[in-house]
Amino acid sequence: MSPVFRHVVLMKFRSPLDADQADRVTRALDDLGAQSPTVRAISHGPDLGVRAGGHDYALVADFDDAQGWQAYSAHPAHDVVRSVMKDLVESQVACQFAVGDPGDGA
Amino acid sequence: MSPVFRHVVLMKFRSPLDADQADRVTRALDDLGAQSPTVRAISHGPDLGVRAGGHDYALVADFDDAQGWQAYSAHPAHDVVRSVMKDLVESQVACQFAVGDPGDGA
Repeated sequence: MSPVFRHVVLMKFRSPLDADQADRVTRALDDLGAQSPTVRAISHGPDLGVRAGGHDYALVADFDDAQGWQAYSAHPAHDVVRSVMKDLVESQVACQFAVGDPGDGA
Repeated sequence: MSPVFRHVVLMKFRSPLDADQADRVTRALDDLGAQSPTVRAISHGPDLGVRAGGHDYALVADFDDAQGWQAYSAHPAHDVVRSVMKDLVESQVACQFAVGDPGDGA
């Protein structure tokens, strides 16, 4: 597997999403993934509530490299995500790590 | 792709890891992944420092279902991880979401 730049974001919402809000989040992130040519893979979704105290939502997106992630971040579809999220998200944390490089525990 | 129960953990360390500590973290998590029969895929690694303010380390692990994650959590190799991490990790956040289920934005 060629090396992957894996971008992970975990989000906490201000309050539980209603069905319409959840749908807008899902569609905005689906669109971002579909419209960003540098995305190699993307998955996202609400916490399943199996483990207490988890964050509310997670996204994992794979790119060839940091430039791929930067293009995704700058993509117009990301502005739509930001506009949807800005009133919903209380906080978010992120981390980006290499997958498939020797020594990075792929 | 059959549905996946994706487990994501982001960690903050008390202080930057030295080479020996980083190696112990990598080996403990590699061993956990290799020894846990319910793990379908696992990736982990240190933040690449491309984006300021990120968490220090991330792990993404895939299972068939919640039971697979629970077996992984209870696995003896996880006790080794906990013993390695307990003096290093300041805080961690987690989220678990479905990938590949209709409506979960896979």
